[in-house]
Amino acid sequence: MRRRRPSAGRTSDGPVGVFDSGIGGLTVLDAISRRMPAESLVYFGDTAHVPYGTKSPEAVARYSSEVARYLEGLGVKALVVACNTASAVALPTVRRAVGVPVIGVILPGAKAAAEASRSGRIGIIGTEATIASGAYTRAVKGLRPKARVTGAACPLFVPFVEEGWWDGSVIEAVARRYLGTMRRSGVDTLILGCTHYPLLRGVVAAEMGKAVTLIDSAEQTAIELWALLRRLGLERTSGKGKARFIVSDGPGRFRMLARRLIGKDVDVRRHRFDG
Amino acid sequence: MRRRRPSAGRTSDGPVGVFDSGIGGLTVLDAISRRMPAESLVYFGDTAHVPYGTKSPEAVARYSSEVARYLEGLGVKALVVACNTASAVALPTVRRAVGVPVIGVILPGAKAAAEASRSGRIGIIGTEATIASGAYTRAVKGLRPKARVTGAACPLFVPFVEEGWWDGSVIEAVARRYLGTMRRSGVDTLILGCTHYPLLRGVVAAEMGKAVTLIDSAEQTAIELWALLRRLGLERTSGKGKARFIVSDGPGRFRMLARRLIGKDVDVRRHRFDG
Repeated sequence: MRRRRPSAGRTSDGPVGVFDSGIGGLTVLDAISRRMPAESLVYFGDTAHVPYGTKSPEAVARYSSEVARYLEGLGVKALVVACNTASAVALPTVRRAVGVPVIGVILPGAKAAAEASRSGRIGIIGTEATIASGAYTRAVKGLRPKARVTGAACPLFVPFVEEGWWDGSVIEAVARRYLGTMRRSGVDTLILGCTHYPLLRGVVAAEMGKAVTLIDSAEQTAIELWALLRRLGLERTSGKGKARFIVSDGPGRFRMLARRLIGKDVDVRRHRFDG
Repeated sequence: MRRRRPSAGRTSDGPVGVFDSGIGGLTVLDAISRRMPAESLVYFGDTAHVPYGTKSPEAVARYSSEVARYLEGLGVKALVVACNTASAVALPTVRRAVGVPVIGVILPGAKAAAEASRSGRIGIIGTEATIASGAYTRAVKGLRPKARVTGAACPLFVPFVEEGWWDGSVIEAVARRYLGTMRRSGVDTLILGCTHYPLLRGVVAAEMGKAVTLIDSAEQTAIELWALLRRLGLERTSGKGKARFIVSDGPGRFRMLARRLIGKDVDVRRHRFDG
Protein backbone atom coordinates (compact mmCIF):
# COMPACT_ATOMS: atom_id res chain seq x y z
CA MET A 1 0.00 0.00 0.00
CA ARG A 2 2.88 2.30 0.71
CA ARG A 3 5.28 1.04 -1.90
CA ARG A 4 7.01 3.51 -4.16
CA ARG A 5 6.54 2.42 -7.71
CA PRO A 6 9.03 3.05 -10.50
CA SER A 7 8.26 6.21 -12.41
CA ALA A 8 9.78 4.96 -15.64
CA GLY A 9 7.86 5.54 -18.83
CA ARG A 10 6.43 8.93 -17.91
CA THR A 11 6.64 11.41 -20.75
CA SER A 12 5.62 14.99 -21.22
CA ASP A 13 2.50 13.74 -23.02
CA GLY A 14 0.75 12.54 -19.86
CA PRO A 15 -1.75 14.69 -18.00
CA VAL A 16 -1.23 16.33 -14.62
CA GLY A 17 -3.51 15.06 -11.87
CA VAL A 18 -5.18 17.67 -9.65
CA PHE A 19 -7.05 16.47 -6.60
CA ASP A 20 -9.31 17.99 -3.96
CA SER A 21 -12.01 16.76 -1.59
CA GLY A 22 -14.60 18.59 -3.67
CA ILE A 23 -14.71 21.66 -5.85
CA GLY A 24 -12.28 24.00 -4.09
CA GLY A 25 -9.30 22.70 -6.07
CA LEU A 26 -10.84 24.13 -9.23
CA THR A 27 -9.25 27.46 -8.26
CA VAL A 28 -5.86 25.69 -8.52
CA LEU A 29 -6.80 23.93 -11.76
CA ASP A 30 -7.77 27.28 -13.20
CA ALA A 31 -4.40 28.84 -12.26
CA ILE A 32 -2.53 25.89 -13.79
CA SER A 33 -4.39 25.97 -17.08
CA ARG A 34 -3.90 29.73 -17.41
CA ARG A 35 -0.15 29.42 -16.84
CA MET A 36 0.40 26.16 -18.76
CA PRO A 37 -2.31 25.99 -21.44
CA ALA A 38 -0.59 23.11 -23.23
CA GLU A 39 -0.89 20.73 -20.25
CA SER A 40 -3.76 18.29 -20.09
CA LEU A 41 -5.32 17.96 -16.64
CA VAL A 42 -7.32 15.29 -14.82
CA TYR A 43 -9.26 16.70 -11.90
CA PHE A 44 -10.54 14.41 -9.16
CA GLY A 45 -13.09 15.62 -6.58
CA ASP A 46 -13.56 13.12 -3.74
CA THR A 47 -17.18 14.14 -3.29
CA ALA A 48 -18.08 10.85 -1.61
CA HIS A 49 -15.95 11.98 1.35
CA VAL A 50 -16.23 15.79 1.25
CA PRO A 51 -15.54 17.70 3.47
CA TYR A 52 -12.03 16.68 4.59
CA GLY A 53 -11.66 19.66 6.95
CA THR A 54 -13.61 18.09 9.81
CA LYS A 55 -12.36 14.50 9.35
CA SER A 56 -9.48 12.86 11.26
CA PRO A 57 -5.94 12.97 9.81
CA GLU A 58 -6.04 9.16 9.40
CA ALA A 59 -9.24 9.29 7.36
CA VAL A 60 -7.91 12.12 5.18
CA ALA A 61 -4.66 10.19 4.58
CA ARG A 62 -6.58 7.05 3.60
CA TYR A 63 -8.94 8.84 1.21
CA SER A 64 -6.10 10.88 -0.34
CA SER A 65 -3.89 7.86 -0.98
CA GLU A 66 -6.74 6.03 -2.65
CA VAL A 67 -7.36 8.95 -5.01
CA ALA A 68 -3.62 9.35 -5.69
CA ARG A 69 -3.24 5.68 -6.64
CA TYR A 70 -6.28 5.90 -8.88
CA LEU A 71 -4.83 8.96 -10.70
CA GLU A 72 -1.45 7.24 -11.02
CA GLY A 73 -3.29 4.36 -12.68
CA LEU A 74 -4.68 6.84 -15.22
CA GLY A 75 -1.10 7.72 -16.20
CA VAL A 76 -0.62 11.16 -14.67
CA LYS A 77 2.96 12.44 -14.89
CA ALA A 78 2.66 14.53 -11.71
CA LEU A 79 0.10 15.04 -8.97
CA VAL A 80 -1.06 18.28 -7.34
CA VAL A 81 -2.80 17.84 -3.98
CA ALA A 82 -4.97 20.94 -4.45
CA CYS A 83 -6.54 20.65 -1.01
CA ASN A 84 -5.03 22.38 1.99
CA THR A 85 -6.33 19.83 4.49
CA ALA A 86 -4.87 16.88 2.55
CA SER A 87 -1.63 18.81 1.95
CA ALA A 88 -1.41 19.62 5.67
CA VAL A 89 -2.01 16.14 7.09
CA ALA A 90 -1.44 13.60 4.31
CA LEU A 91 1.34 14.69 1.95
CA PRO A 92 4.00 12.21 3.20
CA THR A 93 1.47 9.36 3.02
CA VAL A 94 0.45 10.30 -0.52
CA ARG A 95 4.10 10.52 -1.59
CA ARG A 96 4.75 7.02 -0.25
CA ALA A 97 1.64 5.69 -2.00
CA VAL A 98 2.60 6.66 -5.55
CA GLY A 99 5.67 6.80 -7.77
CA VAL A 100 5.00 10.14 -9.47
CA PRO A 101 6.15 13.53 -8.15
CA VAL A 102 3.60 15.09 -5.78
CA ILE A 103 3.25 18.73 -4.78
CA GLY A 104 0.91 20.22 -2.22
CA VAL A 105 -0.44 23.73 -1.72
CA ILE A 106 0.99 24.51 1.75
CA LEU A 107 4.61 25.20 0.84
CA PRO A 108 3.76 27.41 -2.17
CA GLY A 109 1.35 29.47 -0.04
CA ALA A 110 3.83 29.74 2.82
CA LYS A 111 6.58 30.82 0.41
CA ALA A 112 4.45 33.54 -1.15
CA ALA A 113 3.48 34.84 2.31
CA ALA A 114 7.04 34.76 3.67
CA GLU A 115 8.14 36.83 0.69
CA ALA A 116 5.19 39.24 0.73
CA SER A 117 5.23 40.14 4.43
CA ARG A 118 7.13 43.26 5.47
CA SER A 119 6.70 42.91 9.23
CA GLY A 120 6.93 39.12 9.46
CA ARG A 121 3.52 38.98 11.14
CA ILE A 122 1.58 36.49 9.04
CA GLY A 123 -1.94 35.16 9.47
CA ILE A 124 -3.45 31.91 8.21
CA ILE A 125 -7.10 30.95 7.87
CA GLY A 126 -8.21 27.42 7.01
CA THR A 127 -10.28 24.42 8.03
CA GLU A 128 -10.12 23.01 11.56
CA ALA A 129 -7.87 20.16 10.39
CA THR A 130 -5.47 22.48 8.54
CA ILE A 131 -5.12 24.90 11.45
CA ALA A 132 -4.84 22.10 14.03
CA SER A 133 -2.04 20.48 12.00
CA GLY A 134 0.25 23.50 12.37
CA ALA A 135 1.56 22.76 8.86
CA TYR A 136 1.48 26.37 7.64
CA THR A 137 3.20 27.67 10.76
CA ARG A 138 6.01 25.13 10.32
CA ALA A 139 6.33 25.92 6.61
CA VAL A 140 6.43 29.71 7.17
CA LYS A 141 8.94 29.42 10.01
CA GLY A 142 11.10 27.07 7.92
CA LEU A 143 11.38 29.86 5.34
CA ARG A 144 11.45 32.83 7.70
CA PRO A 145 12.36 31.72 11.22
CA LYS A 146 11.54 35.03 12.92
CA ALA A 147 8.01 35.23 11.49
CA ARG A 148 5.12 35.49 13.97
CA VAL A 149 2.26 33.34 12.76
CA THR A 150 -1.41 33.54 13.84
CA GLY A 151 -3.95 30.92 12.75
CA ALA A 152 -7.75 30.88 12.77
CA ALA A 153 -10.13 28.11 11.73
CA CYS A 154 -13.19 29.25 9.76
CA PRO A 155 -15.33 26.08 9.53
CA LEU A 156 -18.40 27.75 8.01
CA PHE A 157 -16.55 29.32 5.07
CA VAL A 158 -16.59 26.10 3.00
CA PRO A 159 -20.35 25.51 3.45
CA PHE A 160 -21.02 29.14 2.51
CA VAL A 161 -18.95 28.81 -0.68
CA GLU A 162 -20.71 25.55 -1.55
CA GLU A 163 -24.06 27.28 -0.94
CA GLY A 164 -23.05 30.08 -3.32
CA TRP A 165 -23.38 32.81 -0.66
CA TRP A 166 -20.13 34.55 -1.56
CA ASP A 167 -21.15 38.06 -0.61
CA GLY A 168 -23.86 39.91 1.28
CA SER A 169 -24.61 40.66 4.90
CA VAL A 170 -24.72 37.08 6.22
CA ILE A 171 -21.24 36.00 5.09
CA GLU A 172 -19.95 39.44 6.15
CA ALA A 173 -21.24 38.78 9.67
CA VAL A 174 -19.61 35.34 9.68
CA ALA A 175 -16.29 36.83 8.50
CA ARG A 176 -16.48 39.53 11.17
CA ARG A 177 -16.84 36.89 13.85
CA TYR A 178 -14.03 34.66 12.57
CA LEU A 179 -11.59 37.42 11.67
CA GLY A 180 -11.99 39.91 14.53
CA THR A 181 -9.06 38.59 16.56
CA MET A 182 -6.96 38.18 13.42
CA ARG A 183 -7.55 41.79 12.41
CA ARG A 184 -6.55 43.07 15.83
CA SER A 185 -3.40 40.88 15.82
CA GLY A 186 -1.73 43.24 13.36
CA VAL A 187 -0.78 40.80 10.61
CA ASP A 188 0.22 42.44 7.33
CA THR A 189 -0.24 39.29 5.25
CA LEU A 190 -3.01 36.69 5.40
CA ILE A 191 -2.85 33.26 3.73
CA LEU A 192 -6.19 32.03 2.36
CA GLY A 193 -5.32 28.51 3.48
CA CYS A 194 -8.20 26.66 1.84
CA THR A 195 -8.85 26.37 -1.88
CA HIS A 196 -12.46 27.50 -1.36
CA TYR A 197 -11.48 30.80 0.23
CA PRO A 198 -10.43 32.74 -2.90
CA LEU A 199 -14.17 32.86 -3.64
CA LEU A 200 -14.59 34.88 -0.43
CA ARG A 201 -11.65 37.17 -1.20
CA GLY A 202 -13.86 40.28 -1.38
CA VAL A 203 -15.47 39.65 2.01
CA VAL A 204 -12.16 38.78 3.69
CA ALA A 205 -10.42 41.82 2.16
CA ALA A 206 -13.19 44.14 3.39
CA GLU A 207 -12.93 42.74 6.91
CA MET A 208 -9.11 42.78 7.10
CA GLY A 209 -8.61 46.18 5.48
CA LYS A 210 -6.53 47.37 2.54
CA ALA A 211 -3.18 47.24 4.35
CA VAL A 212 -3.29 43.42 4.56
CA THR A 213 -2.03 41.40 1.58
CA LEU A 214 -4.10 38.29 0.85
CA ILE A 215 -2.19 35.23 -0.37
CA ASP A 216 -3.92 32.64 -2.50
CA SER A 217 -1.92 29.40 -2.94
CA ALA A 218 -3.34 28.69 -6.39
CA GLU A 219 -1.08 30.98 -8.40
CA GLN A 220 2.07 30.03 -6.50
CA THR A 221 1.23 26.33 -6.78
CA ALA A 222 0.94 26.68 -10.56
CA ILE A 223 4.43 28.28 -10.59
CA GLU A 224 5.88 25.43 -8.50
CA LEU A 225 4.31 22.86 -10.82
CA TRP A 226 5.74 24.61 -13.84
CA ALA A 227 9.23 24.63 -12.29
CA LEU A 228 8.91 20.94 -11.34
CA LEU A 229 7.85 19.83 -14.82
CA ARG A 230 10.67 21.82 -16.44
CA ARG A 231 13.22 20.35 -14.05
CA LEU A 232 12.09 16.81 -14.85
CA GLY A 233 11.81 17.40 -18.59
CA LEU A 234 8.08 16.69 -18.40
CA GLU A 235 6.81 20.07 -19.58
CA ARG A 236 4.47 20.08 -22.52
CA THR A 237 5.09 23.15 -24.65
CA SER A 238 2.87 22.83 -27.70
CA GLY A 239 -0.75 22.08 -28.44
CA LYS A 240 -3.82 22.84 -26.39
CA GLY A 241 -4.38 20.82 -23.21
CA LYS A 242 -7.72 19.37 -22.22
CA ALA A 243 -9.27 18.96 -18.80
CA ARG A 244 -11.24 15.93 -17.58
CA PHE A 245 -13.27 15.86 -14.37
CA ILE A 246 -13.96 12.81 -12.22
CA VAL A 247 -15.83 12.65 -8.92
CA SER A 248 -16.45 9.83 -6.43
CA ASP A 249 -20.15 10.61 -5.89
CA GLY A 250 -22.96 11.73 -8.22
CA PRO A 251 -21.75 14.32 -10.77
CA GLY A 252 -24.86 16.55 -10.69
CA ARG A 253 -23.93 18.60 -7.68
CA PHE A 254 -20.30 18.99 -8.80
CA ARG A 255 -21.41 20.16 -12.23
CA MET A 256 -23.70 22.79 -10.69
CA LEU A 257 -21.03 24.06 -8.29
CA ALA A 258 -18.33 24.07 -11.00
CA ARG A 259 -20.58 26.28 -13.10
CA ARG A 260 -20.86 28.70 -10.18
CA LEU A 261 -17.15 28.54 -9.44
CA ILE A 262 -15.46 28.73 -12.82
CA GLY A 263 -18.40 30.01 -14.83
CA LYS A 264 -18.55 27.22 -17.41
CA ASP A 265 -20.08 23.81 -17.96
CA VAL A 266 -17.74 20.90 -17.35
CA ASP A 267 -18.10 17.29 -18.40
CA VAL A 268 -17.95 15.16 -15.25
CA ARG A 269 -17.94 11.41 -14.85
CA ARG A 270 -18.06 9.28 -11.76
CA HIS A 271 -15.59 6.77 -10.37
CA ARG A 272 -16.84 4.85 -7.38
CA PHE A 273 -14.38 3.49 -4.86
CA ASP A 274 -15.41 0.38 -2.95
CA GLY A 275 -16.66 1.16 0.52
CA MET B 1 -25.90 -8.04 0.20
CA ARG B 2 -29.64 -7.59 0.12
CA ARG B 3 -30.64 -10.86 1.71
CA ARG B 4 -33.13 -10.82 4.53
CA ARG B 5 -31.70 -12.76 7.39
CA PRO B 6 -33.75 -14.71 9.90
CA SER B 7 -34.60 -12.70 12.95
CA ALA B 8 -34.82 -15.72 15.22
CA GLY B 9 -33.16 -15.51 18.58
CA ARG B 10 -33.90 -11.86 19.27
CA THR B 11 -35.08 -11.25 22.78
CA SER B 12 -36.07 -8.22 24.77
CA ASP B 13 -32.56 -8.19 26.27
CA GLY B 14 -30.85 -6.89 23.15
CA PRO B 15 -30.14 -3.21 22.60
CA VAL B 16 -31.87 -0.93 20.11
CA GLY B 17 -29.62 0.44 17.38
CA VAL B 18 -29.90 4.15 16.59
CA PHE B 19 -28.07 5.46 13.57
CA ASP B 20 -27.30 8.85 12.04
CA SER B 21 -24.68 10.32 9.73
CA GLY B 22 -23.26 12.25 12.66
CA ILE B 23 -24.54 13.74 15.87
CA GLY B 24 -28.04 14.89 14.88
CA GLY B 25 -29.60 11.54 15.81
CA LEU B 26 -28.69 12.18 19.45
CA THR B 27 -31.93 14.20 19.68
CA VAL B 28 -33.78 10.95 18.81
CA LEU B 29 -31.66 8.86 21.18
CA ASP B 30 -32.47 11.32 23.92
CA ALA B 31 -36.23 11.04 23.29
CA ILE B 32 -36.04 7.22 23.29
CA SER B 33 -34.11 6.99 26.53
CA ARG B 34 -36.49 9.40 28.27
CA ARG B 35 -39.53 7.38 27.15
CA MET B 36 -38.00 3.90 27.58
CA PRO B 37 -35.33 4.16 30.28
CA ALA B 38 -35.02 0.38 30.57
CA GLU B 39 -33.84 -0.06 26.95
CA SER B 40 -30.15 -0.28 26.19
CA LEU B 41 -29.09 1.68 23.11
CA VAL B 42 -26.21 1.49 20.64
CA TYR B 43 -25.70 4.74 18.76
CA PHE B 44 -23.73 4.79 15.52
CA GLY B 45 -22.57 8.09 13.96
CA ASP B 46 -21.17 7.59 10.45
CA THR B 47 -18.75 10.47 10.89
CA ALA B 48 -16.42 9.18 8.16
CA HIS B 49 -19.16 10.02 5.65
CA VAL B 50 -20.97 12.98 7.26
CA PRO B 51 -22.84 14.90 5.91
CA TYR B 52 -25.36 12.70 4.07
CA GLY B 53 -27.55 15.65 3.04
CA THR B 54 -25.42 16.66 0.05
CA LYS B 55 -24.48 13.13 -1.09
CA SER B 56 -26.23 11.12 -3.82
CA PRO B 57 -29.06 8.72 -2.89
CA GLU B 58 -26.88 5.78 -4.01
CA ALA B 59 -24.04 6.80 -1.70
CA VAL B 60 -26.42 7.33 1.24
CA ALA B 61 -28.02 3.91 0.62
CA ARG B 62 -24.61 2.22 0.51
CA TYR B 63 -23.31 3.89 3.69
CA SER B 64 -26.59 3.27 5.55
CA SER B 65 -26.74 -0.43 4.67
CA GLU B 66 -23.17 -0.92 5.82
CA VAL B 67 -23.95 0.65 9.18
CA ALA B 68 -27.20 -1.33 9.52
CA ARG B 69 -25.43 -4.64 8.89
CA TYR B 70 -22.75 -3.73 11.41
CA LEU B 71 -25.37 -2.93 14.06
CA GLU B 72 -27.23 -6.16 13.28
CA GLY B 73 -23.94 -7.96 13.87
CA LEU B 74 -23.82 -6.39 17.34
CA GLY B 75 -27.15 -8.04 18.12
CA VAL B 76 -29.59 -5.14 18.05
CA LYS B 77 -33.24 -6.19 18.32
CA ALA B 78 -34.50 -3.21 16.28
CA LEU B 79 -32.97 -0.38 14.30
CA VAL B 80 -33.94 3.29 14.23
CA VAL B 81 -32.66 5.23 11.21
CA ALA B 82 -32.47 8.53 13.11
CA CYS B 83 -31.42 10.51 10.05
CA ASN B 84 -33.96 12.17 7.82
CA THR B 85 -31.81 11.96 4.70
CA ALA B 86 -31.20 8.22 5.12
CA SER B 87 -34.87 7.67 6.04
CA ALA B 88 -35.94 9.61 2.95
CA VAL B 89 -33.75 7.90 0.36
CA ALA B 90 -32.52 4.61 1.82
CA LEU B 91 -35.14 2.99 4.06
CA PRO B 92 -36.17 0.21 1.61
CA THR B 93 -32.50 -0.63 0.97
CA VAL B 94 -31.73 -0.76 4.69
CA ARG B 95 -34.78 -2.99 5.31
CA ARG B 96 -33.59 -5.43 2.64
CA ALA B 97 -30.06 -5.42 4.07
CA VAL B 98 -30.96 -6.62 7.58
CA GLY B 99 -33.33 -9.03 9.27
CA VAL B 100 -34.36 -6.88 12.23
CA PRO B 101 -37.29 -4.43 12.22
CA VAL B 102 -36.31 -0.97 10.99
CA ILE B 103 -38.09 2.33 11.56
CA GLY B 104 -37.25 5.72 10.09
CA VAL B 105 -38.07 9.25 11.17
CA ILE B 106 -40.10 10.43 8.15
CA LEU B 107 -43.37 8.65 8.81
CA PRO B 108 -43.50 9.58 12.53
CA GLY B 109 -42.85 13.24 11.68
CA ALA B 110 -45.41 13.23 8.88
CA LYS B 111 -48.00 11.61 11.17
CA ALA B 112 -47.49 14.17 13.92
CA ALA B 113 -47.79 17.02 11.39
CA ALA B 114 -50.89 15.59 9.69
CA GLU B 115 -52.56 15.36 13.09
CA ALA B 116 -51.41 18.77 14.34
CA SER B 117 -52.35 20.89 11.34
CA ARG B 118 -55.74 22.61 11.38
CA SER B 119 -55.64 24.05 7.86
CA GLY B 120 -53.81 21.20 6.14
CA ARG B 121 -51.11 23.58 4.96
CA ILE B 122 -47.91 21.94 6.14
CA GLY B 123 -44.30 23.01 5.66
CA ILE B 124 -41.13 20.89 5.71
CA ILE B 125 -37.55 22.01 6.08
CA GLY B 126 -34.62 19.64 5.62
CA THR B 127 -31.40 18.90 3.75
CA GLU B 128 -31.20 19.16 -0.02
CA ALA B 129 -31.41 15.36 -0.37
CA THR B 130 -34.44 15.07 1.95
CA ILE B 131 -36.38 17.84 0.22
CA ALA B 132 -35.42 16.60 -3.27
CA SER B 133 -36.64 13.09 -2.41
CA GLY B 134 -40.22 14.26 -1.84
CA ALA B 135 -40.50 11.62 0.90
CA TYR B 136 -42.21 13.89 3.45
CA THR B 137 -44.71 15.16 0.90
CA ARG B 138 -45.66 11.59 -0.05
CA ALA B 139 -45.90 10.55 3.61
CA VAL B 140 -48.09 13.53 4.59
CA LYS B 141 -50.38 13.09 1.58
CA GLY B 142 -50.67 9.37 2.28
CA LEU B 143 -52.09 10.27 5.69
CA ARG B 144 -54.01 13.39 4.71
CA PRO B 145 -54.60 13.45 0.96
CA LYS B 146 -55.89 17.02 0.82
CA ALA B 147 -52.89 18.51 2.62
CA ARG B 148 -50.91 21.22 0.81
CA VAL B 149 -47.23 20.68 1.43
CA THR B 150 -44.40 23.23 0.98
CA GLY B 151 -40.74 22.20 1.24
CA ALA B 152 -37.56 24.24 1.66
CA ALA B 153 -33.95 23.03 1.81
CA CYS B 154 -31.78 24.75 4.44
CA PRO B 155 -28.27 23.44 3.65
CA LEU B 156 -26.40 25.74 6.07
CA PHE B 157 -28.44 24.75 9.14
CA VAL B 158 -26.43 21.55 9.75
CA PRO B 159 -23.02 23.30 9.57
CA PHE B 160 -24.31 26.01 11.94
CA VAL B 161 -25.47 23.39 14.47
CA GLU B 162 -22.14 21.56 14.19
CA GLU B 163 -20.35 24.88 14.72
CA GLY B 164 -22.40 25.51 17.86
CA TRP B 165 -23.92 28.77 16.55
CA TRP B 166 -27.46 27.96 17.69
CA ASP B 167 -28.60 31.52 18.32
CA GLY B 168 -27.55 35.10 17.65
CA SER B 169 -27.76 37.47 14.73
CA VAL B 170 -25.92 35.38 12.14
CA ILE B 171 -28.11 32.26 12.32
CA GLU B 172 -31.15 34.55 12.55
CA ALA B 173 -30.14 36.15 9.24
CA VAL B 174 -29.67 32.70 7.67
CA ALA B 175 -33.09 31.57 8.94
CA ARG B 176 -34.72 34.73 7.60
CA ARG B 177 -33.32 34.02 4.15
CA TYR B 178 -34.30 30.33 4.10
CA LEU B 179 -37.73 30.73 5.71
CA GLY B 180 -39.05 33.94 4.13
CA THR B 181 -41.04 32.17 1.41
CA MET B 182 -42.20 29.50 3.87
CA ARG B 183 -43.52 32.13 6.27
CA ARG B 184 -45.44 33.89 3.53
CA SER B 185 -46.90 30.57 2.29
CA GLY B 186 -49.27 30.47 5.26
CA VAL B 187 -48.42 27.02 6.70
CA ASP B 188 -49.76 26.43 10.22
CA THR B 189 -47.42 23.50 10.92
CA LEU B 190 -43.74 23.11 10.09
CA ILE B 191 -41.83 19.82 10.24
CA LEU B 192 -38.22 20.15 11.43
CA GLY B 193 -37.18 17.49 8.90
CA CYS B 194 -33.60 17.00 10.04
CA THR B 195 -32.45 15.69 13.39
CA HIS B 196 -30.10 18.67 13.79
CA TYR B 197 -32.88 21.22 13.52
CA PRO B 198 -34.43 20.88 17.01
CA LEU B 199 -31.28 22.68 18.17
CA LEU B 200 -32.39 25.68 16.10
CA ARG B 201 -35.98 25.52 17.35
CA GLY B 202 -35.79 28.95 19.00
CA VAL B 203 -34.50 30.67 15.85
CA VAL B 204 -37.01 28.91 13.58
CA ALA B 205 -39.90 29.65 15.96
CA ALA B 206 -39.00 33.35 16.10
CA GLU B 207 -38.88 33.55 12.31
CA MET B 208 -42.12 31.59 11.69
CA GLY B 209 -44.17 33.24 14.44
CA LYS B 210 -46.19 31.84 17.34
CA ALA B 211 -49.13 30.66 15.21
CA VAL B 212 -47.01 27.97 13.54
CA THR B 213 -46.63 24.61 15.32
CA LEU B 214 -43.14 23.10 15.01
CA ILE B 215 -42.95 19.31 14.69
CA ASP B 216 -39.85 17.47 15.83
CA SER B 217 -39.73 13.81 14.72
CA ALA B 218 -37.74 12.68 17.75
CA GLU B 219 -40.63 12.37 20.20
CA GLN B 220 -42.99 10.71 17.71
CA THR B 221 -40.25 8.30 16.62
CA ALA B 222 -39.75 7.22 20.23
CA ILE B 223 -43.51 6.53 20.47
CA GLU B 224 -43.43 4.44 17.27
CA LEU B 225 -40.46 2.46 18.56
CA TRP B 226 -42.23 1.80 21.83
CA ALA B 227 -45.33 0.54 19.98
CA LEU B 228 -43.20 -1.65 17.71
CA LEU B 229 -41.30 -3.28 20.58
CA ARG B 230 -44.54 -3.95 22.48
CA ARG B 231 -46.16 -5.47 19.41
CA LEU B 232 -43.21 -7.82 18.87
CA GLY B 233 -42.86 -8.70 22.55
CA LEU B 234 -39.37 -7.16 22.56
CA GLU B 235 -39.99 -4.42 25.13
CA ARG B 236 -37.70 -4.33 28.11
CA THR B 237 -39.61 -3.21 31.16
CA SER B 238 -37.21 -3.45 34.08
CA GLY B 239 -33.69 -2.36 34.88
CA LYS B 240 -31.81 0.67 33.71
CA GLY B 241 -30.63 0.72 30.09
CA LYS B 242 -27.18 1.81 29.03
CA ALA B 243 -26.06 3.72 25.94
CA ARG B 244 -22.95 2.99 23.87
CA PHE B 245 -21.59 5.28 21.17
CA ILE B 246 -19.64 4.23 18.09
CA VAL B 247 -18.39 6.42 15.25
CA SER B 248 -16.67 5.64 11.95
CA ASP B 249 -14.05 8.42 12.22
CA GLY B 250 -12.03 9.85 15.11
CA PRO B 251 -14.12 10.13 18.30
CA GLY B 252 -12.73 13.49 19.48
CA ARG B 253 -14.98 15.71 17.43
CA PHE B 254 -18.08 13.60 18.17
CA ARG B 255 -17.38 13.72 21.90
CA MET B 256 -17.07 17.52 21.79
CA LEU B 257 -20.26 17.97 19.78
CA ALA B 258 -22.18 15.47 21.92
CA ARG B 259 -21.25 17.50 24.98
CA ARG B 260 -22.65 20.60 23.30
CA LEU B 261 -25.76 18.77 22.12
CA ILE B 262 -26.88 16.69 25.08
CA GLY B 263 -24.85 18.41 27.76
CA LYS B 264 -22.94 15.39 29.03
CA ASP B 265 -19.76 13.46 28.38
CA VAL B 266 -20.22 10.27 26.40
CA ASP B 267 -17.85 7.36 25.99
CA VAL B 268 -17.20 6.94 22.27
CA ARG B 269 -15.25 4.28 20.43
CA ARG B 270 -14.38 3.99 16.78
CA HIS B 271 -15.25 1.34 14.22
CA ARG B 272 -13.53 1.77 10.90
CA PHE B 273 -15.14 0.41 7.75
CA ASP B 274 -12.85 -0.59 4.91
CA GLY B 275 -12.62 2.10 2.23
